[in-house]
Amino acid sequence: MREVGIGIAGFGTVGGGVLSILRRHAGDIEARLGARIVVRKIALRDARKTRAVDVASGLITTRLQDLLDDPAIEVVVELIGGVDQAFDLVTGALSRGKHVVTANKALLAARGEEIFRLARSKSVDVYYEAAVCGGVPIIRTLREALASDRINALTGIVNGTTNFILTAMAEKGEALAAVLAEAQRLGYAEADPTLDVSGGDAAQKLCVLAQLAFGARLRPEQVLTEGIMALTPEDFRWAREFGYALKLLAVARRCGPPENDPRGQDQIEARVHPAFIPQSSMMAGVRGAMNAVVLRSEALGPSMLYGQGAGAMPTGSAVVSDIIDLTRNILAGSPGRVPLPPEQPLVGLRPHAEIRSGYYLHFSVKDEPGVLARIAAALAARHISVAAVQQREPADPKAPVPLVFVTHQAREADVQAAIAELDKQAFSLQPARLIRIESV
Amino acid sequence: MREVGIGIAGFGTVGGGVLSILRRHAGDIEARLGARIVVRKIALRDARKTRAVDVASGLITTRLQDLLDDPAIEVVVELIGGVDQAFDLVTGALSRGKHVVTANKALLAARGEEIFRLARSKSVDVYYEAAVCGGVPIIRTLREALASDRINALTGIVNGTTNFILTAMAEKGEALAAVLAEAQRLGYAEADPTLDVSGGDAAQKLCVLAQLAFGARLRPEQVLTEGIMALTPEDFRWAREFGYALKLLAVARRCGPPENDPRGQDQIEARVHPAFIPQSSMMAGVRGAMNAVVLRSEALGPSMLYGQGAGAMPTGSAVVSDIIDLTRNILAGSPGRVPLPPEQPLVGLRPHAEIRSGYYLHFSVKDEPGVLARIAAALAARHISVAAVQQREPADPKAPVPLVFVTHQAREADVQAAIAELDKQAFSLQPARLIRIESV
Repeated sequence: MREVGIGIAGFGTVGGGVLSILRRHAGDIEARLGARIVVRKIALRDARKTRAVDVASGLITTRLQDLLDDPAIEVVVELIGGVDQAFDLVTGALSRGKHVVTANKALLAARGEEIFRLARSKSVDVYYEAAVCGGVPIIRTLREALASDRINALTGIVNGTTNFILTAMAEKGEALAAVLAEAQRLGYAEADPTLDVSGGDAAQKLCVLAQLAFGARLRPEQVLTEGIMALTPEDFRWAREFGYALKLLAVARRCGPPENDPRGQDQIEARVHPAFIPQSSMMAGVRGAMNAVVLRSEALGPSMLYGQGAGAMPTGSAVVSDIIDLTRNILAGSPGRVPLPPEQPLVGLRPHAEIRSGYYLHFSVKDEPGVLARIAAALAARHISVAAVQQREPADPKAPVPLVFVTHQAREADVQAAIAELDKQAFSLQPARLIRIESV
Repeated sequence: MREVGIGIAGFGTVGGGVLSILRRHAGDIEARLGARIVVRKIALRDARKTRAVDVASGLITTRLQDLLDDPAIEVVVELIGGVDQAFDLVTGALSRGKHVVTANKALLAARGEEIFRLARSKSVDVYYEAAVCGGVPIIRTLREALASDRINALTGIVNGTTNFILTAMAEKGEALAAVLAEAQRLGYAEADPTLDVSGGDAAQKLCVLAQLAFGARLRPEQVLTEGIMALTPEDFRWAREFGYALKLLAVARRCGPPENDPRGQDQIEARVHPAFIPQSSMMAGVRGAMNAVVLRSEALGPSMLYGQGAGAMPTGSAVVSDIIDLTRNILAGSPGRVPLPPEQPLVGLRPHAEIRSGYYLHFSVKDEPGVLARIAAALAARHISVAAVQQREPADPKAPVPLVFVTHQAREADVQAAIAELDKQAFSLQPARLIRIESV
């Protein structure tokens, strides 16, 4: 039977998951492929560390180079994470004509373009289903199923840690710090949760998704990124009051050519931020550490993929699916069967000032006559149309009065300017808070 | 540029959708494939009928045979529906070495086995993404992405007409007849809605899905099938009372080998029926004519695909995706790249009497002492454990008293026997009503 040799670099939880899935389904996979997938080498940092999955010591190396040098390895599976070393490994593999499977979103967000260019020039494949939302086949769907459609918007809950935290805040009414501590205790959040709670992880994933969905070329630092650390239990109470759930969304939306160049390339908005979404939407039902991506496309209309975002088995399963798919291409002699993202960018980035969205605006003001009128006038002067407004009597008559506006679609720059102006007024006791509203 | 010729049989709304998508995306498709997809012939019943999409008259024929005889047609797209004529067309194409794309679930449910056998023997491909839930890439996901996983349960809302009706009943509190009439007026239900409201359409789709997900061999008449016509507004009120939504589900669930043959092949339950599902579940949020399929598998855990079930563009887009995928195989010389369903059945069918589920049981009884105790005793005698019970005072003291039980998991045969026995009692004023409860 034909054998396809693979080398695995990095052997943490995902690597262990990959190996156990390959072993458990070896018979199935052979029957379906008519070939055997053989793990030739596993490169890891510390050969003496105990491992959850048993591995023959002859397979183990601590040198990544051994994977590149072994001519019997046709596919390199990159699970080491990080950017620089992973980049060297991946490009080393591609330049030797080896195919690559990677689960590394940071790598693809930072240097995907170079990697795809090299893969094209060498006629080899790069698969990366596990890089974004392990348990959700979103990469495959974007690469294959939508070849005949045009995507207009992609909206995702792509970070399980923050969705776990926001779900707990919504359901228990607790403050973020308490919920975060609980998430860390349960293993849903890292000891240093910055990458997750800052929205940075979601921004990396959005770059990878927007490249496939729109042919965009984005770096994470170009994405408008706001994390969840400033959210308060009060925000959740207001969300419920207005019929919304509060989620951290990654949004990429086609919005036509620039206003000053109507025949130019389409632009997309690209942003990661907390958002109010309708309670009745499918997205609002995504609880705990689950992930979901909603696509809106011309032919299909709205569609959604939902599943686990992380974990050894979901992510391991995504990696093995990629290995199987690659093996099919190798056996059929058809690498490059499904094209990599387009070589030239097909869309530009809309400046963040031009983003259009609904807004929840929370002012904390002195209890004195005329304040409501002055805020309403400031919004109206900037063409910000108010959909709902609500004022609450504070329990303590000396406390600031919360005054909340929900707006129709407005321009980000107008809203920011109105807030900056209102924050300077004597009646403003705290800076205004802003949460964007998405229909999803 | 290499050309791949296709012939389209049947030119209703889906056929029109296919042609307009192929035309609109011709440039994109050529760029991605490096080949041109050319429609060589369109076979339709009435050449004089006016059509929504313009077609050169030279392309049109009224003879299906012309598609088979044309050597320049490599792919036959079957959109004529029905079983017999479609079977002749599809097998005619396969036996001539042509590939087939079909949107015909009835054909695949009735004669899929013969079709797949012929395709295997001729080394050609059959694609059928559009046969089940047009706007949901469920076939592709089952065929490809899950090669390395083991599915334990598949639960779907796979019929848009009935979901539209049930959503309206739930949200407006109206009776089924009124809602059905409205659905017909809006085009969501056919003039003769029998196939949809009986659950028959969902049973056909379940057969196609269970074959891929479990390697099952099922005919629709083997599926336990209950439609929605008996549902009343009261059922929806009780559902809400207990925290459930009410949906028509298609369920296939792996449940191990038969009890009397513990080393035998796994069996699956296969059933289509109205079901109570938790209000907080993702499935409960699937509204209107939308479709969704939840998979539970070993590695991925729970995942869901959601989208439009029908319509010219979603279904047309699924057909075009198949054509593109097939074209990739043709260009790469790799037909049969993704295997068809397994030749031998991998699971058996669990007898319906052995199904296990929770149950909502609605009794209409005389208002007299001891009735509650006698029903409870009859359930207990058959090991049916009660999770909740509720009795309502009827407005009219002479009217039957509704007495509602929610049970834990119980055996179908036990529940049916208890009901049959209780229905014979003098205190029973109407036959008991039963709705299964699924955790989804």
